[in-house]
Order: sequence, then structure tokens, then C-alpha cells
Amino acid sequence: MTISGNQLINGQWVEGTAGSYNAVNPATGETLEPAMSKASSAQVEEAVAAAEAAAATLRKSSLEQRAQFLNTCADEILALGDELVQRAMAETGLPEARIIGERGRTMGQLRMFADYVVKGDYLDARIDTAMPDREPLPRPDLRYVKQSIGPVAVFGASNFPLAFSVAGGDTASAFAAGCPVLVKGHSSHSGTSELMAQALARAVEKCGLPSGTFSLLMGAGREVGSALVQAPEIKAVGFTGSLAGGMALVKLSNERPEPIPVFAEMGSVNPVVLLPEALKERADKIAEGFAFSLNMGVGQFCTNPGLVLAIDGPELNQFIEVAGAKIADQPAGVMLNETIHQAYQEGVSNYCGQTETLAQGGESDGTGFKARAALLSCSAQEFIANPKIHEEIFGPVSLIVRCSDAEELVAAVSALKGQLTGTVHCADGELASHSALADVLAQRVGRLLINGFPTGVEVCHAMVHGGPFPAATDVRFTSVGSTAIDRFVRPICLQNYPQELLPDALKNENPLGILRTVNGEKTREGI
Amino acid sequence: MTISGNQLINGQWVEGTAGSYNAVNPATGETLEPAMSKASSAQVEEAVAAAEAAAATLRKSSLEQRAQFLNTCADEILALGDELVQRAMAETGLPEARIIGERGRTMGQLRMFADYVVKGDYLDARIDTAMPDREPLPRPDLRYVKQSIGPVAVFGASNFPLAFSVAGGDTASAFAAGCPVLVKGHSSHSGTSELMAQALARAVEKCGLPSGTFSLLMGAGREVGSALVQAPEIKAVGFTGSLAGGMALVKLSNERPEPIPVFAEMGSVNPVVLLPEALKERADKIAEGFAFSLNMGVGQFCTNPGLVLAIDGPELNQFIEVAGAKIADQPAGVMLNETIHQAYQEGVSNYCGQTETLAQGGESDGTGFKARAALLSCSAQEFIANPKIHEEIFGPVSLIVRCSDAEELVAAVSALKGQLTGTVHCADGELASHSALADVLAQRVGRLLINGFPTGVEVCHAMVHGGPFPAATDVRFTSVGSTAIDRFVRPICLQNYPQELLPDALKNENPLGILRTVNGEKTREGI
Repeated sequence: MTISGNQLINGQWVEGTAGSYNAVNPATGETLEPAMSKASSAQVEEAVAAAEAAAATLRKSSLEQRAQFLNTCADEILALGDELVQRAMAETGLPEARIIGERGRTMGQLRMFADYVVKGDYLDARIDTAMPDREPLPRPDLRYVKQSIGPVAVFGASNFPLAFSVAGGDTASAFAAGCPVLVKGHSSHSGTSELMAQALARAVEKCGLPSGTFSLLMGAGREVGSALVQAPEIKAVGFTGSLAGGMALVKLSNERPEPIPVFAEMGSVNPVVLLPEALKERADKIAEGFAFSLNMGVGQFCTNPGLVLAIDGPELNQFIEVAGAKIADQPAGVMLNETIHQAYQEGVSNYCGQTETLAQGGESDGTGFKARAALLSCSAQEFIANPKIHEEIFGPVSLIVRCSDAEELVAAVSALKGQLTGTVHCADGELASHSALADVLAQRVGRLLINGFPTGVEVCHAMVHGGPFPAATDVRFTSVGSTAIDRFVRPICLQNYPQELLPDALKNENPLGILRTVNGEKTREGI
Repeated sequence: MTISGNQLINGQWVEGTAGSYNAVNPATGETLEPAMSKASSAQVEEAVAAAEAAAATLRKSSLEQRAQFLNTCADEILALGDELVQRAMAETGLPEARIIGERGRTMGQLRMFADYVVKGDYLDARIDTAMPDREPLPRPDLRYVKQSIGPVAVFGASNFPLAFSVAGGDTASAFAAGCPVLVKGHSSHSGTSELMAQALARAVEKCGLPSGTFSLLMGAGREVGSALVQAPEIKAVGFTGSLAGGMALVKLSNERPEPIPVFAEMGSVNPVVLLPEALKERADKIAEGFAFSLNMGVGQFCTNPGLVLAIDGPELNQFIEVAGAKIADQPAGVMLNETIHQAYQEGVSNYCGQTETLAQGGESDGTGFKARAALLSCSAQEFIANPKIHEEIFGPVSLIVRCSDAEELVAAVSALKGQLTGTVHCADGELASHSALADVLAQRVGRLLINGFPTGVEVCHAMVHGGPFPAATDVRFTSVGSTAIDRFVRPICLQNYPQELLPDALKNENPLGILRTVNGEKTREGI
């Protein structure tokens, strides 16, 4: 057992001085050893001060150094071996294949940022050369580059113990940007968090970076997270979780003397629209894909398809029959922790009073925190009139909205708040005849999918994992994909700056060979 | 007289139904005719609904159409002729040359965005092509593009009646992004606002754009602005003005069911650091440049040099002697309006009790709203201990902070909050030996200038007019320069989207010929 229950603060593993708690195996309800210590507010301050001290060094680190660091993080995660996999399984109830897959995703994400950062595109380097003879006024030499925003607080998410947690996408993109990171690990998977932090700490050391580059702080309440967001040195926050959790952080930021950007991805119901021709053509196949997507990971994805909208009729009934049968066959699945399980039970029970229950999965055997899948339904009129049934229930439940015609379908979609994703199933050429629907849906989502399912968020350059509020706090950013780095950089303009003191990205000869905007034109040429 | 005192709502000029007020000539204190009507909240709603109706059309408008519209706006502003110049002079007290220059800047800004938008770089188009055979899971086709955020509310600034007002940088960048704009015109220059709105309305009509593309709403209190920011259809806000004004808008946004980005540029004191060798070499010349920059526009620039920091000694005294003499020679200047004049008087009077007065400009003759320039001083210790004298006083006053040595200079700079600009005057090679100072200053500013003065914000690709809070609400954006467009766009990802329905920017053959990121590589090639 290499898990100590300690905090990582400024490169040192120390016991938290604010008490301790134990993670719980959600499959059995049993306590997991060792106890995890909780960081005190003084320890949070110490970690934040170390991050602030590291910030200037990281800001000036070369793109190559950052790439090397990110790749070393990936290597060290793999080197944790099976202990990581077993611990993550025990703490989350997720199966081995999923954890191994998620580990691959996490490493892939780090390596993608390594590749991306050395290209230097994210720097958006811009040079407007001096025009000393311009009339009526000369133009000075002006150079623009993105640089790290400063220390970033990252909150581990419960549902991705690796890919959206200690060394997940927020951390990877903040490191790529040259920011120190302080992670508040999720208490549900504290051992997993510590192991991942061990890997990052080894990477920090191997790469000769300042010890304040990364700290892990654990706690079981809101104290550690609040102290982080309130610390004056923290310049941005990355969060994935519930609406209530995200908005609590936004509120803390707004109350700071210096408010900071809080990028919170807060989930959504991810509407899936089934157009008539698609249903006619392949109701069974769509239903099978839908049920698979709904039950994957016991429905605990931000992009879980929690809402289906379609025009009522025999084809929709056929879809419901097949999907309902698949859901009825689904044994109860282990949820991530007691809080999530309880919220799911309450959520479904509330919804059941307001909607019709079409199908339910197998019942829990009473051990651990097991969820019973559910398929509910209501009419479009009921849906439009009752915003309470627009809210996400985190878990394997989906609501089918029966619309009387295409117009009502558009009206139901128009009633939606911001979503991470929206999906349309259509036959070839069918989408063109539903352009109003596509327009309305596009304005409510960060990602619009055709003939697919929203689960499975590809880590790539074109991904948007964000969306209009309340899917995320700022529709202008994404938390997955290479542009996630944009959350943690800010531009600075250097005017008439001495050539020898300019960052490499802005030097005349373009020593990095990056693409720059010189007097408005994109070029890799020097000047 | 072509000024009606009416509102522009959905392409119609109508009288505001919430009363009226008159602008005042600040040089004389005399009331200007005609009376300007005030928009009622129902009229604000009407304008917002029209903008919402226009949003989808504008979002889909081609880059060429937007460029043509922006250029037509510039043409129509010029066509307003001398009436615009005379009215702006009467409403602001600014001289003819300044107004004509500012008109040129305003037109240049619109034309710059026209040129910029057709390049398509701001779209950041990205394509990750499908990998159907990838193991363990295939990759779908994913395409990313920036699109307009929706209707934008813009607040006219008092100090730039043309360039930061009705057709200023916020409006130009929002139009470039494909957003409808609703301007709350500044009550100090309401006739100027109406004339500019007439020009924009003609451009909307000539270009065949929806009538909701642009509306002008006037008012003399906070009602119109509050109604705008609270309207659910408004998706972003652009503001230039005071800290109190900007933060009031942020508060309104935070209280919305759907908070929206409020980009407020709220000014700063723009510290100017004089390094010892520079002072030895050319104290007189720097002092002359400084006094000129301080008094320009009666000190009513966001980038006015309100703070000078230097090591005490005979060279600094020489600087003070020359700058003080220039300031003492300065006749009292007309400020923009009574509120600004009163705040200036009170601000200087408060500061005088806490600092030493080194020089004062000529006294007001008592007519209109005239300001007396002032040069104040204090020690670094006094400065560091008293955050009250860090606040901006909008107008021609500057505070000189005498530091005992280089270390205290860094300490004084470290005590600063976020600034739009920071300036260092140095001799050749001198900056390299003050790297700690340069680092500390860089982290507190949006633009760092060497051997210049902060007034004069070039409209170009490399400009940053923004900065750490409280200079602006979001350090990641600028309100001047081509990247100002980034405030008003948001990414969307289209997954497996039908080729024929994709926006041109994302079509395989790249019909726009724009630079795109295809599978991680920048290219103009089609796929």
C-alpha cells in the first residue's frame, strides 16, 4: 500500500491537520483504508503561496519544457500500474475496462496538450511593426502574446476519477498554459487522487520544475475548496460537477476583491431529437444505441442522454418498446457515492410523480449504492409548462417528450436551457427540412451531433465541451479539447519592447517558427 | 438641425415615452436643444425583441456581407459631415481637431474589422476528420467554428463620443462577429449619439440587413441600461467607464437567471516608472512628454498617466521641475460634464489632504466645467500604506511616488492593482538590470510600454486594451484591436454534420480559403 492519506504541499507529503475521513467502496458501502487527512486553511495558504512562487518560472518556461513535463506526467501515471486501477475501481464502482480506458484517455489528453503547446498556435502571437513616419502620428511597435494567467484551482470531478480529476483535462490544460495547479481532490476517490498526485509530483521533480507547480489538497466538506477560491493568488478556477457546486464557486469568486474567471461545466440533460423519417427507417437501432448510451457508466456522464424529443406515433412507440425492453433488462448499477445515489433516488421519485413511467431497470439488491434505470415520458405541453422536469437527474434516467407535430417539437426544444450537447437523428436529407429545429437547437448547445449519441467526448482540436448557461458558466470556452487552454491564458501587449528581452514567440527572427499575425497577415516568416 | 431627440427602435425613429432631458454644453453650462426623449422599459423590450429576431440572420450572414456593412457604416459616418463635428464639440468641450481625429479613428476601426473579418482567422475553424476504423472506438467527424454570441448591449462612454460610443469599438467588433447591437447612448452627448445612430441605420438599410440589427436607446439615469442588461435575449455586454458603473452592470448580470459575460473596461492610473539612467539621460524630455500626455484631452483618457514612480534624487527633482512648470502653464480645461468635473474636484481635494501638491495648472474662470491640472507627490511608504491614493481620479492629475531605492520601487509597483497599461522609461540596456520590476509590472497590466506614454491606444491587431481586475472585468479579453471580436463569439462543435448544411467555413473544400486547423495542423487546403 503506497497510499499515505497525506496532502501534497509544495513538493512535500504532509498530514492534513484538519482531521480525517475515509473513502467508501460504493459497491459494498465498506470503508476504505487508509484514512485520508484533511488540509487546514493554513495548509491551503501554504500550497497557494508555493504556487504563486512557482508562477513566474512556469510562465517563462519554454514550450518544449512544458511538453516534456506533460509527457512525463503521462509516463508516471502509467508507471503507477495496477495499484491505480484497483484503487480507482474500489473507490468508484467502475469496472476495470472503464478505468483502464479512462487512464488511456487521461494520458492521451496530457500528450495531446504536449503536442499542441509546442506548435505555439495558442499563443496567438501578433506583431504590428512600427511606422515611424506615419501621419498624423507615428505607430509604435506593438507585440501581442498569450501568457499564463497564474495559479489555477482545479476541482476533481466524481464521475471521472482520472480524466476529469487530479491529472485531468483542467490540470493538463493549465499546465500546458504554464500555470501552477492546486487540485482539490474529490473525497469519493481520495486514494486514487493521491496516487495520481504522486505521479505528478514525480514528473515535477524529474523535470526540475518548482515544487509549487502542483499541490493536492483533500477535504470532505467545502472548506478546502472555499479557501482555494478565496485565495488572492488564485487567478482562475476549473470545475466539473453539479450546478449547485459550480454556482457556489462562482458566488465565492464574485465576492472576492478581485473576481476571477470560474469555468464550471455543470452538466445538462443533452436532448436527443428523433426526426420522423429516422424513426421510420430505424427506430429499433436508434433505441438500442440510446439505451446503451443511457446506461453506460450507470448514466453518470455529463453528456448522458436524459431527454428524448419526438413526434408521437407508432414509430415512437416502437422506439420506446425496444429502448424500454433494454432498460428493463439492465441490472441495477453501482453509483459513485452515497450522495449521488441519494440524489438520483430522490430525483427519479420526484419525476415519477410528474411523468409516466415507461420502463424500469432491475432493482437494487440493497448492498452499496445501486441505481435502477428508468425511462419516463410526458407530453410536450406538460414539458413546456413544467420547468422542474427540465432539470438534470444525474444517473440512468431519461424522459421522452411526445410532441404532436413538428411545430410542437420546435416549441419543446425552444423551452430548453443551455446544454452541453444536442443530438438529432435523421434520415438522409431530412435535416434540411427541419432547419428551424436545427437553428433553435444549435443556439442551446455547445456540440450538435447528427445520428450519434452524446456520450463519448472526443479529446481533439474541434471538441466543445461547454455550452450556454447553465451547461457551463461561460459559453465562450470549452473544458475538453485543445482550446481548453484558452481558459488559462491572457494576452499582454508589449510596446517598443527591447528585442533581446522579448519572449521568443515575439522576437523578430521567429526562433520558434510559429505561425504569427504580422501586420494582419498570418506568416511563419521572421521580420 | 437633423437631430430629433428620438430613439431608434427596430429601424423606426420614435419618441421615448419616459420623459426627456437636455444635453449641456460643458464649456458654458448652457442647455443644448433639442430635448432628448428617454426610452421606456417597454421600448427597451421592443428593441431587444427586434434584435433577437435579427440575430439568426446576422449569424448566418457571410463574412463579405459583414465587411460591406462595416465599411458602409464608416461611409455614412463621414457623410454626416460637419454637423457631427460641431455637435460633438458642443456636447463634449473637445476641440475640432480632436473630434475630426476621433472620427477618423472610428471609421478606421470599422474598416479594420471589415478587413479582419473576411480573413476568417477569428473563426478559428477546426476539423478533426472521422476515423471509422480506430480502435477501440471510431472517431466521429468533428468540426468547430466560432459564431456570434447573440444580441449585445453596448454602453457609450463619455470620453470618446465617437470611438467608444454608438459606433465605437464595442459596436464595430460585435457587428463584425455577426451580433445585433443595442446601444445605450451616453446622455452627455445625446445629439452626437443620435447622429451616429442615423448613420448606422442608413447602413443597415443600404445593406438590406434586418431592422433589428441596431437600436439606439437613450436615458439619463440607470433605467435604460439596467433594462438592457436584464433582458433575457441579451447575451453579452460591452462597457467603458467607471469602476462603479462597470461593477453595477456585473452585479445585474450575476443576478440574471442566465448570467452573461460583461466586458467592462474600467480605467486605471497607468503607472509610469522612471528608471535612474533614463532620468540622468533625459529627465527634461521625459517630463515634457509626460506633461503633454497628462494634459491631453484634459486628462480624460482611460490611459492617462496618473501615477509616476521613481527613485528619489536630483534627477527626479529635475523631472518634477520641468513637468511642474508645464502643468503650471496649463490653463484650466473644459471637462466632459458636470458629474465628471465634480468627481475630479472632489478627488483632487481628497488627495491633496494626503499628499504634497507640487504644481497646479491655471484656475477655472468659473464658466462651465473647467478643471485645474495638478501634480502631487508622496513617499513610497505613504503610497504602500494608503490604498486610497491608488484610486483613479479621472482628469489631469498625477501622483509622483518617491522611492528610496530600486527595492522600494519594486515594492511600490507590487502594491498596485490591475492596470490597463504600465510604462517604463529606461536607458539602452537598463531594463535588463531591472527584471524583477519588469516582471512585477507585467503581471499587473494589459500593455507594457517602453519609453513612451500610455495615451494613444493604437487600433491594430496586437493591441491589448484591458488588463487584470479592476482595469477590466476579464483579463482574457481586450476592448480595442482586432481580437476585441473574441468577446462576442463562442465556439460550437458540429459532429457528423451533413456536408451541405455546414457553414462555409467548415465545408470540406474550404470555399472561403481561410486558415483552418485540420487534424491539428494549420492549413488552407481543402480535405
